[in-house]
Amino acid sequence: MSLIVQKYGGTSVADVEHLKNVARKVAEWKKKTDHLVVVLSAMAGETNVLLRLAHEACDNPDEREMDMLLSSGERVTIPLLAMILKSRGIKAISLTGRQSGIFTDGMHTRARIKTIKTDSIKKYLDDDYVVVVAGFQGYSEENDAVTTLGRGGSDTTAVALAVALGADRCEIYTDVDGVYTTDPRVVPSARRLHHVSYEEMLEMSGLGAKVLQIRSVEFAAKFGMPILVKSSFQDGPGTWVKAEDAHMEKVLVASVVYDKAQAKLTIAGVPDSPGIAAKIFGAIAGNGINVDMIIQNISVHGLTDISLTVPTADAKKTLDRLEAVKEEINAREVLTDGNIGKVSVVGVGMRSHPGVAAKMFSMLADAGISLQMISTSEIKISCIINEEDVDRAVRMLHEGFELGKE
Amino acid sequence: MSLIVQKYGGTSVADVEHLKNVARKVAEWKKKTDHLVVVLSAMAGETNVLLRLAHEACDNPDEREMDMLLSSGERVTIPLLAMILKSRGIKAISLTGRQSGIFTDGMHTRARIKTIKTDSIKKYLDDDYVVVVAGFQGYSEENDAVTTLGRGGSDTTAVALAVALGADRCEIYTDVDGVYTTDPRVVPSARRLHHVSYEEMLEMSGLGAKVLQIRSVEFAAKFGMPILVKSSFQDGPGTWVKAEDAHMEKVLVASVVYDKAQAKLTIAGVPDSPGIAAKIFGAIAGNGINVDMIIQNISVHGLTDISLTVPTADAKKTLDRLEAVKEEINAREVLTDGNIGKVSVVGVGMRSHPGVAAKMFSMLADAGISLQMISTSEIKISCIINEEDVDRAVRMLHEGFELGKE
Repeated sequence: MSLIVQKYGGTSVADVEHLKNVARKVAEWKKKTDHLVVVLSAMAGETNVLLRLAHEACDNPDEREMDMLLSSGERVTIPLLAMILKSRGIKAISLTGRQSGIFTDGMHTRARIKTIKTDSIKKYLDDDYVVVVAGFQGYSEENDAVTTLGRGGSDTTAVALAVALGADRCEIYTDVDGVYTTDPRVVPSARRLHHVSYEEMLEMSGLGAKVLQIRSVEFAAKFGMPILVKSSFQDGPGTWVKAEDAHMEKVLVASVVYDKAQAKLTIAGVPDSPGIAAKIFGAIAGNGINVDMIIQNISVHGLTDISLTVPTADAKKTLDRLEAVKEEINAREVLTDGNIGKVSVVGVGMRSHPGVAAKMFSMLADAGISLQMISTSEIKISCIINEEDVDRAVRMLHEGFELGKE
Repeated sequence: MSLIVQKYGGTSVADVEHLKNVARKVAEWKKKTDHLVVVLSAMAGETNVLLRLAHEACDNPDEREMDMLLSSGERVTIPLLAMILKSRGIKAISLTGRQSGIFTDGMHTRARIKTIKTDSIKKYLDDDYVVVVAGFQGYSEENDAVTTLGRGGSDTTAVALAVALGADRCEIYTDVDGVYTTDPRVVPSARRLHHVSYEEMLEMSGLGAKVLQIRSVEFAAKFGMPILVKSSFQDGPGTWVKAEDAHMEKVLVASVVYDKAQAKLTIAGVPDSPGIAAKIFGAIAGNGINVDMIIQNISVHGLTDISLTVPTADAKKTLDRLEAVKEEINAREVLTDGNIGKVSVVGVGMRSHPGVAAKMFSMLADAGISLQMISTSEIKISCIINEEDVDRAVRMLHEGFELGKE
């Protein structure tokens, strides 16, 4: 028995006309597979509309109520798709997160799936229904309340359901036709990858590639569920995200990723004594601030500078925290620089091929681009550079590592 | 311990600004009563938007999916009100129909409440929460699906909750400040009634007065729950809907009601033989068509005409059914007249005071308005007249029965 879980999101569920297009694809797929589960997100833009209503309502919306509000979005798309399918003679039923058996912890707006009770979905699948599931949402039994899985959570719904149901694969239909060697808007010769490994996809999602929610990739990696990323609008082979195999290891660098929505903060003139870093990072921890890179300059006359990068959205909050701790640690000043960007190369091949970092640095140096901060993992190298150099750096690295060639 | 159930609907929940106004009223009321339950409908117009999406999606939307779709509307208003209240320091929580324990039969789009399990609401009330409940929706355990109670169902949610919780009263906040002797847009001297009996309100709701869903009045009458109809926008005493009392019986006529959204259909030249009426009404029964009045002319040469009235919305469907049955019963033709209206007088005083009908007919005759059909009950008289005469008839009857005077 074949079973596929498909997820349609973004503009592919933007309105009724697009949902009819999804229904056509689903009808085709139902002929090719025994069982089909379809996960939908809210209509494109709807989540932003609901967020705006909440922020009109009050300054710090209660998170339980926020989840009740946000979860209404998928309750519009799922019945619409189910009724279109039914009107075309295909047995279909829409299920909310709770009705699909997706139970989470009680962390509203960023809940994690605890368990999936598949009885109900399985019953409908056995009865030959296409099951249309609301993505992004679950239910906390402890709170007796609906929860949401965070931005892009529908990807995680789809992968988690695929794992729980033992699906053959999880297909993610989106606005792009796969995962690219880099952003085609910056580098026209960017090439769609046939496959990337879970590790590469994790790095790429973490570095700013918006194809998949990072948690969905973690889930897929943990359980070895193959993901196929495809376009909602055109046919094509898409990109497989799956376990690393022999073929992949031949590739040195799979992708160049960039992120301009970064800010650098520097605490200058910090007395270089033990425990200072702990005080600084203690002050900003636990506030949902996502510190990315950290660098500490060599101490001169007992004073040092500590720089860190955060997403632009967290810059103001981070600055407030650092200003608050400045007095306490007797630092001179706090500086902010929003004019930076991060460019990274990712590839599992780096594990067995040293020298990628050196090659990257020399390419950037030859182009006169100076590096402000560097961070590496086993399979990626990231550099912080001036924002205005980012596009040029991406183009050069893409060409230098010959990513445009098969 | 005092407990009030309040319902806010229509334009009073049209947007966030209006919801803030509701929050202000709720905050005031929370000081005056021990326990407060607030039932909300969807934002004004939202239900129509969702209906339009469904009809764009397909011709005959599946009713289970329709309920899933329509029930999303209240999931927007209830968390918004709850988060506004919380931001103002008032303990509040939003609950869906299912979470409020409102369980219905499985008749999607027109479900009836079977039982209300009040444990959860009571727990929150005991804990001093304002409980904000989604109106219009319930849950069918047999279908494991959300259901809706039909247009205006939020009124029924409010009254049913008031009964189940043993509330002191149920307050319905709406766009008008009470129940009037007639439509003030037609008769400027129309007067707000201090109280009307359940029976009068039932007749008025059935005759086209749009203040309360008829089912909510049935529910209130059955359990003797007093309803107070008030304006969402201005203070005022409102109108009590409650059991008939000695005071009310002195009033001959309480109200003049009209309905222009009526159509008359006539099957002409019907052989006057037994079983013909059964065939005709058998053909239109069971299609959700609401036949109001029926009249059969005196038979001439063995042929008769049968006329009936239906809401304008059902006219096309009724015509199709009658055309289909025409051959079978060998009738000559089917005629439709959309140019009619119904004008009615309602009052419990009619029970003990004969002659109201005669007075009504003579007033209409004096004005040269001819009666096409008449229907009566113990406490109402309705006449079908030409649509263009309706406003004039309403003004005359309102004056003739002296309804403008206290």
